[in-house]
Amino acid sequence: MKRTRNRVTSYDVARLAGVSQPTVSRAFTPGASITKDKRDRVLAAAKQLSYLPNSIARSLANARSNIVAVIVGDMHNPFYAESLQAFITRLQDSGRHVLAFTISDGRDCDDALMQALGYHVDGIVVTSAHLSSDLISTSQDAGIPIVLFNRRTADPALASVRCENEAGAATLARAMCNAGGREFLIIRGDPQGSTSRDRVNGFRSELEALGVAPGRVEEIDGQSSYAGSYDAVLSRFKDKVRPFPDAIFAVNDIMAIGCADALRGEFGLAIPDDIMLAGFDGVREATRAPYELTTIRQPIEVMVEKTLDLLERKQSGTLEDAGNSLVVTGELIAGKTVPAGTAAPGGDGDRS
Amino acid sequence: MKRTRNRVTSYDVARLAGVSQPTVSRAFTPGASITKDKRDRVLAAAKQLSYLPNSIARSLANARSNIVAVIVGDMHNPFYAESLQAFITRLQDSGRHVLAFTISDGRDCDDALMQALGYHVDGIVVTSAHLSSDLISTSQDAGIPIVLFNRRTADPALASVRCENEAGAATLARAMCNAGGREFLIIRGDPQGSTSRDRVNGFRSELEALGVAPGRVEEIDGQSSYAGSYDAVLSRFKDKVRPFPDAIFAVNDIMAIGCADALRGEFGLAIPDDIMLAGFDGVREATRAPYELTTIRQPIEVMVEKTLDLLERKQSGTLEDAGNSLVVTGELIAGKTVPAGTAAPGGDGDRS
Repeated sequence: MKRTRNRVTSYDVARLAGVSQPTVSRAFTPGASITKDKRDRVLAAAKQLSYLPNSIARSLANARSNIVAVIVGDMHNPFYAESLQAFITRLQDSGRHVLAFTISDGRDCDDALMQALGYHVDGIVVTSAHLSSDLISTSQDAGIPIVLFNRRTADPALASVRCENEAGAATLARAMCNAGGREFLIIRGDPQGSTSRDRVNGFRSELEALGVAPGRVEEIDGQSSYAGSYDAVLSRFKDKVRPFPDAIFAVNDIMAIGCADALRGEFGLAIPDDIMLAGFDGVREATRAPYELTTIRQPIEVMVEKTLDLLERKQSGTLEDAGNSLVVTGELIAGKTVPAGTAAPGGDGDRS
Repeated sequence: MKRTRNRVTSYDVARLAGVSQPTVSRAFTPGASITKDKRDRVLAAAKQLSYLPNSIARSLANARSNIVAVIVGDMHNPFYAESLQAFITRLQDSGRHVLAFTISDGRDCDDALMQALGYHVDGIVVTSAHLSSDLISTSQDAGIPIVLFNRRTADPALASVRCENEAGAATLARAMCNAGGREFLIIRGDPQGSTSRDRVNGFRSELEALGVAPGRVEEIDGQSSYAGSYDAVLSRFKDKVRPFPDAIFAVNDIMAIGCADALRGEFGLAIPDDIMLAGFDGVREATRAPYELTTIRQPIEVMVEKTLDLLERKQSGTLEDAGNSLVVTGELIAGKTVPAGTAAPGGDGDRS
């Protein structure tokens, strides 16, 4: 699995960054005096050259740090807040700890990963797939395992733990069809993220299998956030001439919540009487009285446990390649935003 | 500020814990092999004796770690999730990082603090005041500064950053009186926490100043959580013989949200037509369409900035004692759960 390559030294990094070699050392020494500008240049050059400082290699020879770096997405999405809490609790219970990073507000995941590599962490959990392959190789060469959480990539060397996104979305598509949905609207998240893409594909494929013409499935961009979804719904529904959807699938709960607030607050629409609505994730907020959202719950505790287990096995070298990608099953939460299905022929959306 | 005391050694700790001295060393070496039981016994003994391992003292002589430990309360309360995100973002932007601890589910803050001391962190932010004085002295002797966030204690040596809880609660009391509130119900949080206590006191004092008899102010325990508040409201209102409150103050937003869901969902009551409601914190969820809660927003960004500044000044020794306790002003969010005040004599609850 490991790549062979010419060993890059701190002198190569210094040359590319236009700084002295000691400056490169300082850039990788926590607390050392260095200007932000120089540090950024060194990190950029190191990233470009896939350079791993000796200090990290050295620390790896020492005892484990018992620290796991967790790089979470925007915690305005409660799924990430709940996931981070689960990582903190689970690790703390075993005497280990979370070094927390965020990649919200357009922060670059590569930068966060680079910073995490600067500490001798036992492993890195990443909730974004926007990672450069070089950086992944760098960490793998250093023996610091990475596991993707709620994400996947095409790179088979990168382990991941995620929910059955396609199957979950297909379940929701069936439930909505059974409940009489005819014109569908999908509110998608980050188009580059595997999670949104998989859920959109799963939903669309199932609709097609159920005989819904692709022309009756519209898609808008909710930017993975409450506000993004609220605004997208506002803009979509203020113009009433286009076909009026009767079923909306938001690919995550926080966007479904933004959609519900916009439909009710801005247009006085009733859910599900005027429009049915489904989300995905099963966050606490979505299950409360004002929403009681029909959604798929991701089993966060199980996913966290499996992620930490994968990290452990990668670190100890006991991981078979086949076990690199773990997919867990989500649970349908039958809320009040999709009516119980009428016994449509071939339908199996059994809800109580 | 520093206490003089007999130097406790690892042998004292070993004797008290009933283990060998090397076991004590292992308990404080991240990644060292030791059973959970032995580790717990060593930590308990070390805590009792205010023992600080040499490894920590040694590491303090080295460069700063650029890691700040943040011990947060239960992140089911979005105030803590939002605060943690703010700490992560702010520190990460300056090349520093958060080692995250949680004290939810009855976990002990002393344990988390003890664990944090085991890493050579630059400082510790604590969102709970349940700290043993010995442990506080230990960390201060070691030169690791602690700052309380959203909490205070009677200990003048302990720096804190918090919101004007009394004044904020008094503003809400005035607004509710002006809007015609006559029978009041307070949903309090953790009775041992300074934050809940200060808000309850501020609310009660202002009502008294406005001439409301203490007998018309009732108090129930919402356990600081959505579920605790929901259940407390359920139990309070299912019995209709007692005087019916017309104004409820929940000392934090997540309890106000639980209260609103219970009042509407279980009893079909309208807010504010049947009962008015106010919260405290200004979390995003509370300001959304289903709630539009009247509340006091804590300026999280400002509080985080001031907390990190205090840590910095304590570490560099440039902090005057007078600056130890910082109080920031909260902002009244005039939502829809307390009606605009009628021009009651002497009232100043100006709302738009």
